[in-house]
Amino acid sequence: MTEKRVEVCFSPYHIPLYELAKKAVVVIDVYRATSAIVAGMGAGIEKIIPVSTVEEARAYLEKGYKVAAERKGAVVEGFDLGNSPIGFSDPALRGSTVVLTTSNGTKALIKAKSAKEIVVGSFLNQRAVVDYVNQNHDSVMLLAAGWRDRFNLEDTLVCGAMAQDLLSLGWTTDCDSCLGAMHLYDTAKNDIKGFMKNASHTNRLAHLNLDEDIAYCNQKDVFDVVPIYKNNEIVVEHVAKTT
Amino acid sequence: MTEKRVEVCFSPYHIPLYELAKKAVVVIDVYRATSAIVAGMGAGIEKIIPVSTVEEARAYLEKGYKVAAERKGAVVEGFDLGNSPIGFSDPALRGSTVVLTTSNGTKALIKAKSAKEIVVGSFLNQRAVVDYVNQNHDSVMLLAAGWRDRFNLEDTLVCGAMAQDLLSLGWTTDCDSCLGAMHLYDTAKNDIKGFMKNASHTNRLAHLNLDEDIAYCNQKDVFDVVPIYKNNEIVVEHVAKTT
Repeated sequence: MTEKRVEVCFSPYHIPLYELAKKAVVVIDVYRATSAIVAGMGAGIEKIIPVSTVEEARAYLEKGYKVAAERKGAVVEGFDLGNSPIGFSDPALRGSTVVLTTSNGTKALIKAKSAKEIVVGSFLNQRAVVDYVNQNHDSVMLLAAGWRDRFNLEDTLVCGAMAQDLLSLGWTTDCDSCLGAMHLYDTAKNDIKGFMKNASHTNRLAHLNLDEDIAYCNQKDVFDVVPIYKNNEIVVEHVAKTT
Repeated sequence: MTEKRVEVCFSPYHIPLYELAKKAVVVIDVYRATSAIVAGMGAGIEKIIPVSTVEEARAYLEKGYKVAAERKGAVVEGFDLGNSPIGFSDPALRGSTVVLTTSNGTKALIKAKSAKEIVVGSFLNQRAVVDYVNQNHDSVMLLAAGWRDRFNLEDTLVCGAMAQDLLSLGWTTDCDSCLGAMHLYDTAKNDIKGFMKNASHTNRLAHLNLDEDIAYCNQKDVFDVVPIYKNNEIVVEHVAKTT
């Protein structure tokens, strides 16, 4: 049996150091882009088109699409939706296509394009993602979207949680980032809100009162959807549980 | 009073994301380049010239210099010395100039060249480095040399230990890498050898029997020297203790 391997990458900036062609990449921007994608698709959005820039997003808006745009944690002027998972859960979006641009998450998705498959991960679909990659892949990179190409704590925690799940299913790792992420998740797991209280995200966005969104994003296994990014759009897979 | 700030960078690959001109950078390659530099200078080496390539090192050898060269954890063929701190402590090297090339550490030093000042750090001179930067700087980046431009655990632990010391002296941080490094150091500090037993360094170099070197590198505050890299060479500063 092939040994299944998981690794963690702390920032999309590091992607050029890796060969992705034979790997699934799980992109994680837990506060809040990938949580919004998971929540939205869990609530019935049919398709999400990630774009890099606000200009591209605006072009879609002018064509009549539903478009979400976030920068610096806030909804960009002229758009109705940002990257709030609660906003993405609006029943009015059921069955629709939504275009999305965010500061870090959508860029990470687009930068991972050379991967064998690109999966959208968050705490909200942690178990579903783990089951999906366990059933379909033998090499996985958990990619933290980070913040402005730098390491961040929140995405690292999700990487650590998913890596622990994969190791418990018999996967291995020889990657220090993965070991570090698992240790940090161990430290944080009983009080993620408390662990995050000194983190840069918390301080940077305190003025936006995102507490409700953050508490939402910290929930585990609310949805069994596995959004897949292919052909420039995100569509959903449902999976059976491994355990 | 100016607020003093510390940040941590997990890899020299990330240096382009930072403005270093007003910062001291502490370069850390604890297994083993910067530990060897500290041990060697603590034992009386007068000057160390770091070079990037084995070819440059060989050119110095032909000119009659004492030259140390390490690749893949071992002494490069044709050289007498690698990056062993015990080798660097040889009394025969007292008062001499040594040229050094290593896989990660010397490259990190050279890549940090735009910094206000470049300091060589390790567990062996942890307190001396902390006192020195506390007395002479108000903005410090702790730079992990990492492994092949990637995150590694061992250098991160030294970053976390030094960051904790600086915060205890009233410094602040708004950097998630710094918070993460401090958490990891907290997890590891009572048993660094045990913490490192699954790390990539341990597995990669197990065949080289480096246990004695690693145990040496894990010792704290053996030397009060603060090696400074300037004008393409490393020279030593001694410092008075802050506390």
